[in-house]
Amino acid sequence: MDSNTLPENIRLHSNGRAVVILDQSALPGETRYLQLQDEEACYHAIRSLQVRGAPAIGIFAAFALAALARQFQGEAADFLPHCRRLADYLEGARPTAVNLHKMLRRMLACAQQHQPLGLEKTLAAMEAEAQAIQAEDIAMCRAISEHGLGLLSTIESVLTHCNAGPLATSRYGTALGPVFLAKEQGRELQVYCDETRPLLQGARLTTYELQRAGVPCTLICDNMASLVMREGRVGACLVGCDRIARNGDTANKIGTSGLAILAKHYGIPFYVLGPSSTIDFSCPDGSGIPIELREGSEIREAFFRTPSTAAGVACYNPAFDVTDQSLITAIVTERGIAYPPYGESLARLFPIEFQEGKA
Amino acid sequence: MDSNTLPENIRLHSNGRAVVILDQSALPGETRYLQLQDEEACYHAIRSLQVRGAPAIGIFAAFALAALARQFQGEAADFLPHCRRLADYLEGARPTAVNLHKMLRRMLACAQQHQPLGLEKTLAAMEAEAQAIQAEDIAMCRAISEHGLGLLSTIESVLTHCNAGPLATSRYGTALGPVFLAKEQGRELQVYCDETRPLLQGARLTTYELQRAGVPCTLICDNMASLVMREGRVGACLVGCDRIARNGDTANKIGTSGLAILAKHYGIPFYVLGPSSTIDFSCPDGSGIPIELREGSEIREAFFRTPSTAAGVACYNPAFDVTDQSLITAIVTERGIAYPPYGESLARLFPIEFQEGKA
Repeated sequence: MDSNTLPENIRLHSNGRAVVILDQSALPGETRYLQLQDEEACYHAIRSLQVRGAPAIGIFAAFALAALARQFQGEAADFLPHCRRLADYLEGARPTAVNLHKMLRRMLACAQQHQPLGLEKTLAAMEAEAQAIQAEDIAMCRAISEHGLGLLSTIESVLTHCNAGPLATSRYGTALGPVFLAKEQGRELQVYCDETRPLLQGARLTTYELQRAGVPCTLICDNMASLVMREGRVGACLVGCDRIARNGDTANKIGTSGLAILAKHYGIPFYVLGPSSTIDFSCPDGSGIPIELREGSEIREAFFRTPSTAAGVACYNPAFDVTDQSLITAIVTERGIAYPPYGESLARLFPIEFQEGKA
Repeated sequence: MDSNTLPENIRLHSNGRAVVILDQSALPGETRYLQLQDEEACYHAIRSLQVRGAPAIGIFAAFALAALARQFQGEAADFLPHCRRLADYLEGARPTAVNLHKMLRRMLACAQQHQPLGLEKTLAAMEAEAQAIQAEDIAMCRAISEHGLGLLSTIESVLTHCNAGPLATSRYGTALGPVFLAKEQGRELQVYCDETRPLLQGARLTTYELQRAGVPCTLICDNMASLVMREGRVGACLVGCDRIARNGDTANKIGTSGLAILAKHYGIPFYVLGPSSTIDFSCPDGSGIPIELREGSEIREAFFRTPSTAAGVACYNPAFDVTDQSLITAIVTERGIAYPPYGESLARLFPIEFQEGKA
């Protein structure tokens, strides 16, 4: 992916004391960068979705902890407790985000390990750890992209739902990774983007990323997917994932399961792409995945100034749904591709994790 | 249905030279009536969905032709050609709507038949014909509602797409007719309403009608239907139709075919309800039904002041799709209920029309 066309979404400021982010909440209207240098601003950035996408939140939090730690001015003995307090505070911004928790704990472990070497060395190690987290994410996305692109050799156009591109990760993205990798290799895939109601991540973010990278994309309303498939415009569906159960059942943005049913009906391959950290080896199937319910006002008013209904209309607003494993053609991870039956295939790709999850 | 709770949507002005409509494009924010007295305003009303819903468009066009004909000031010999030109012009506003075509042809036939009696008698006959079309629509909707309700004896909740209620017809509606009839009989059906992107007819119009009539309804985004079905919340799907082919293939609001595929997947009955005038006996199957393509700006901006995408994002905006007859459980008309195979069933219900269509 050309760094001239797609803006970098998260980086440490050259002074090491601030994090610079592309404000996703202002997209696509404005490409605005925010320089965040105090803990309240970092908390607010996560809370208000200025930075969003599970991997991106983890990377941001790591850089934020490194930058905030560099501002520490107390006694040496107070440094680790200070870092722990900062980590707890940032984690509270999105309490259910698994990546946020994992990356902050990893940063604290790094701080603790290096503390005997003195403050300067510890700060340098934390900065390097945050850079490593970002680099690992890029490598993970790159591996997913390569595996995914291997499935698309005869395909000219894909359909995607929500946003699982570079903005939600570091580079390439997960579901969109094969598309950006193909572009890098001089091959163009046409992308149909579901707008993804109610919060329009597809319309606002996915088309923004694709347009900037020069990938031909066409926005549709979610309910147009059936016609677009029937007309032969879709060679494959590519979607991300929020949680994958041991049997392959996959929780992702609301609407994913419907798309999978349509794809099966029309005989179109349906691919789930995501990091192996998304697989919950302790979860036997999708029935154990809780579905987050959000405010009805997101349906009635979000992003718009004109309400679409009269006052008082009841709304049901689930944020995710579960796609039955029987509807999924393959699950693409950075370690390789799993095929049905997923219980066996995931056990082969992740023998240790699969065994541990069972226990 | 109580006429106190739902406003009248179309009527001829008392001067006979204008049509008064409830502006559906202003709902639910504003209950605004428009007085239309020239051909451009009538065309615009159809095109811009100030009046919408296949039967309502047919009724409106009939009144419009009667009103515009009354303004004719040329030579007697030019009257019929003038009416034909007006009809062709109005018909061009919505090419997929078969009712628009049929009702305008019926009005022209009426004009032609009465022309030998002189202009005044012809105009009076045309006005009476338009009134008859509306009265027939009320009777037709009532009959559809009764047939449809007969299919729902064990069902507590339904899901509907777009708007096929009283606003789209005259009274009761088609797809929503059984719901309003049940309410009239003291029985409550719970209704899930797809918001129906891009123009949000479900959010704006269906919830408006149901809320006014005191029917419990819940608004969802179109992409939530799969989850709502999976959760067992939907006993049956009720949808309207814009055109039905001889074999049962049905053109209706974009998203209908996807809903039918989901219903089939979850084992939920999928009912199409509409007047027999919607059946195009000259159309062998859905492949012959043209799909109207509309402006991409409807997806990017319609009804909202804040664009959801960056400038220049391509949109694909089909207004309708075709639902394969194999996905439809039954087709409910005012004359009775057709079941698969529809070729045979429709031929039994409509022997004359079916035979004529073949010719």
